[in-house]
Amino acid sequence: MGTPVSEKAVTASEKNVAASEKAVTTGPIEGSVKHYLQVDGLRVPQRRVNLTNGEHLDLYDTSGPYTDAAAVIDVERGLSATRDEWRRPEPIDGVATQLAWARAGVVTPEMTYIAAREGVDVELVRSEVAAGRAVIPVNHRHPESEPMIIGKAFAVKVNANIGNSAVTSSIAEEVEKMVWATRWGADTIMDLSTGKDIHATREWIMRNSPVPVGTVPIYQALEKVNGDPTALTWEIYRDTVIEQAEQGVDYMTVHAGVLLRYVPLTAKRVTGIVSRGGSIMAAWCLAHHTESFLYTHFDDLCEILARYDITFSLGDGLRPGSIADANDEAQFAELRTLGELTTRAKSYGVQVMIEGPGHVPMHKIVENVQLEEQWCEEAPFYTLGPLATDIAPAYDHITSAIGAAMIAQAGTAMLCYVTPKEHLGLPNRDDVKVGVITYKIAAHAADLAKCHPRAQERDDALSRARFEFRWTDQFNLALDPDTAREYHDETMPAEPAKTAHFCSMCGPKFCSMRISADVRAYAEENDLVTAEDIDRKIAEEMAAKSEEFVAAGNHVYLPISEANPAQ
Amino acid sequence: MGTPVSEKAVTASEKNVAASEKAVTTGPIEGSVKHYLQVDGLRVPQRRVNLTNGEHLDLYDTSGPYTDAAAVIDVERGLSATRDEWRRPEPIDGVATQLAWARAGVVTPEMTYIAAREGVDVELVRSEVAAGRAVIPVNHRHPESEPMIIGKAFAVKVNANIGNSAVTSSIAEEVEKMVWATRWGADTIMDLSTGKDIHATREWIMRNSPVPVGTVPIYQALEKVNGDPTALTWEIYRDTVIEQAEQGVDYMTVHAGVLLRYVPLTAKRVTGIVSRGGSIMAAWCLAHHTESFLYTHFDDLCEILARYDITFSLGDGLRPGSIADANDEAQFAELRTLGELTTRAKSYGVQVMIEGPGHVPMHKIVENVQLEEQWCEEAPFYTLGPLATDIAPAYDHITSAIGAAMIAQAGTAMLCYVTPKEHLGLPNRDDVKVGVITYKIAAHAADLAKCHPRAQERDDALSRARFEFRWTDQFNLALDPDTAREYHDETMPAEPAKTAHFCSMCGPKFCSMRISADVRAYAEENDLVTAEDIDRKIAEEMAAKSEEFVAAGNHVYLPISEANPAQ
Repeated sequence: MGTPVSEKAVTASEKNVAASEKAVTTGPIEGSVKHYLQVDGLRVPQRRVNLTNGEHLDLYDTSGPYTDAAAVIDVERGLSATRDEWRRPEPIDGVATQLAWARAGVVTPEMTYIAAREGVDVELVRSEVAAGRAVIPVNHRHPESEPMIIGKAFAVKVNANIGNSAVTSSIAEEVEKMVWATRWGADTIMDLSTGKDIHATREWIMRNSPVPVGTVPIYQALEKVNGDPTALTWEIYRDTVIEQAEQGVDYMTVHAGVLLRYVPLTAKRVTGIVSRGGSIMAAWCLAHHTESFLYTHFDDLCEILARYDITFSLGDGLRPGSIADANDEAQFAELRTLGELTTRAKSYGVQVMIEGPGHVPMHKIVENVQLEEQWCEEAPFYTLGPLATDIAPAYDHITSAIGAAMIAQAGTAMLCYVTPKEHLGLPNRDDVKVGVITYKIAAHAADLAKCHPRAQERDDALSRARFEFRWTDQFNLALDPDTAREYHDETMPAEPAKTAHFCSMCGPKFCSMRISADVRAYAEENDLVTAEDIDRKIAEEMAAKSEEFVAAGNHVYLPISEANPAQ
Repeated sequence: MGTPVSEKAVTASEKNVAASEKAVTTGPIEGSVKHYLQVDGLRVPQRRVNLTNGEHLDLYDTSGPYTDAAAVIDVERGLSATRDEWRRPEPIDGVATQLAWARAGVVTPEMTYIAAREGVDVELVRSEVAAGRAVIPVNHRHPESEPMIIGKAFAVKVNANIGNSAVTSSIAEEVEKMVWATRWGADTIMDLSTGKDIHATREWIMRNSPVPVGTVPIYQALEKVNGDPTALTWEIYRDTVIEQAEQGVDYMTVHAGVLLRYVPLTAKRVTGIVSRGGSIMAAWCLAHHTESFLYTHFDDLCEILARYDITFSLGDGLRPGSIADANDEAQFAELRTLGELTTRAKSYGVQVMIEGPGHVPMHKIVENVQLEEQWCEEAPFYTLGPLATDIAPAYDHITSAIGAAMIAQAGTAMLCYVTPKEHLGLPNRDDVKVGVITYKIAAHAADLAKCHPRAQERDDALSRARFEFRWTDQFNLALDPDTAREYHDETMPAEPAKTAHFCSMCGPKFCSMRISADVRAYAEENDLVTAEDIDRKIAEEMAAKSEEFVAAGNHVYLPISEANPAQ
């Protein structure tokens, strides 16, 4: 929280600080302030939107200290190692994972924090983790993180992928990608970096990330063998996992379900294997004519992950890459194997989630969730979209948001975002924001559909603001206040328009919202609430005004009972 | 299609022509050519995409002659009155509507045209129209239109709303809005113009529109009484309907279900009445304390619409304007009345579709379709979105595409688009394009989910192009080839990249698509097709290579039967 003095004290170079401060986005989201719940000595962040009518709404907040106007950000030092100060329970039979504690009935500080954050009872958190239906991805070595939960009983989460470019120029630039994604609502990020500075880049991200960070260790392992999949070995892979574990990676995608025997099942597909990890392992299996080392060494891997409480994200290396390949034999064969691996991982006390497709037409979406739950002990499902059609490159954030909303409604716990650049190129800053916002929409639509207890509060608050022409509140309650305001101001930029009882769609002369406010006033004046009140009122008025009606211009009045027998 | 001479001959002013030619977008969509099917003397347009591998794909085409390189466009003369040359069947008992003919077993040229366009049997077209499950909106006085069908047995359609600004500057500018929307796939347009030049603007649009045009006559009627809803009368409304009918309007939204007794049911809503037509009629009913003239004169209206074969679009004036108000008493009370009106309209031989919401959370979407079908004789449902959440102004094309895809999957026949400017302001040219493309995605996703016979062809063609690195084909098969190409070229602009076997996401060194092509080659070389082939192959190789495996570096090979008992 620092002062100007301490801010200077921690800085190695004035020049670097200037660059950092410029590159990392800080400060509250427009119209919001950081607010902290105090729970059992824990400080749980929320985004508070103060409304112009004197009310406020507190929202789930993923953005970390970067949106706290009082926080001093120094990316070279990193965030505070807050979780190191928390009391960690004793290991259960030598295992110190959230799963082991939950099963033993132990409530961890992380569970308490999450319950406050989600607005649910802590027992729900503990029991869902114990059942393996939810995971809390928190590597002991990532004490900077603000704990969160991934599970179908909780708000649907969103992951954003980031990755460094070939030439990294500064810590701040790398950190900014994470900061930018979490500012708009990413609940976790995956660092998919490739290239030379992969270790240093990840270190910067870990030390500055308030959200769990996932990786795909096979990517870095592949770099170590100069990009030749056939040169990979278990030892190289294992050392890479340990290297990343030590840095604090919270969850790891492992494509251990790509078995040799499944690979040729993809040969007749329209789009073969489209997962990078899946095709690396397929190439390895084919070249060596032997089973994947990820599969044969899976128990060794479980022992490593258990030590850090890293969560498995069992990768779907054979996921479909097109509508044509959805729900095929290769995909579901791998899913069955992921179920087997889930059981094995949990026997080590390791938390598990399962990755899912990809590209799936709407009528085949629910089956994915059903089989995943059936075969994988209801481990949290974590899907990439899925895209509901293949015909709209440049709009795949939208094609996939349709699938994502539906699969989340069916029970998927976390959605991996897709940006407009999917299939076409590397996303830029704007693409990342659009991808995150689009996926927050899908996740929230699913929360509403699942009747999540706190989901509709925000819709109602925004709708009331809309109906009452509180334009500023409408903007500030939006997922993206900046763009909402910008679009409004394109046609009505003046400040008085923010309280005007119309917008440029209909203009001032006629506005349906205004008229319906008149309806409300009428109903209140006349004490009309139920259909019976209305019938009574109409009957009274008909009697009193029937002559007036006739005189008013030959309006034939049909008594309602005759005109509309269905009523 | 005319010569330079005739082009000049029809032109009143050289200056105007120059302005027109500049303002109206003509020429084929990138990578496509206009192609015509010849069927029973009819010329049915398609968009043909010629692929680089020598194949081609013909797509449904809504864009009219504007995308025909051979067509000469003159907006002051208008399009050819093609349908006037078609043989029109004799009226059935004095009624000359597609519904009357369909019920009498008569196949009209419009039905033949549509069957070719949709790739279905003409009997399906006739029987669905006869059952009232589909409509063909074709006013006899809109002979320029290319007939299309709206019904759940056919491809899901998309409507785009356009409307003039207060000051119209030229024919071409007004026509361009329609041309632009249909270029990207709008199947119908609604002209929601208000203001002084409303009649002339509509005339320009009608004479140049290759798609059916819908209107909401109450808007123009309101202009005639200077915007005061309480000053409306049946006579003013009737005359407006006739004026628009004479111009060729193909379908009309009529909010005849907003009954006086339903109005106070909206008083306790979060967002009251949000339909413009609905609130006009509510204001009228309240002010006059009498039943809506649209309801009391509905039979008179049917007689007018039957004369022109104008299709009713029975408006949902009490649709919900927020998640909180979805599926409430007011909404469903009106829907029941629309069912009663459907029966009445069809007794006059008038075609009917039913408008639907609006704002609906995902879990309440299907009920809307079920009740509509149950109460309204399965008349085609035509919905506005619905938005699946209210929290994302500036992204309501996306919030609503989620709802639109789902409601279309459930049976909705046409989707009214929503642009990014919804709730915020007037959409511009870019917004219209984004809105149309987004809704084409929703419609197509539903076609896939409904297993429409021709829907998946395009997905498969694009996916194959993607897998085979035919970048140009991938762009040209996309809903928006221009943006797909532009996004790709941001990071890889050089022409050779269009055939490169990688993109900027993974770079040249490693590409999963390339590796999976290797898998395919492997499977083909080794004749591996089924899981049994693979088992056999693995067994053979294990025997032959077991020593080699051991020597290769301590890779423990688990026999598949032991390692994965589930298989």
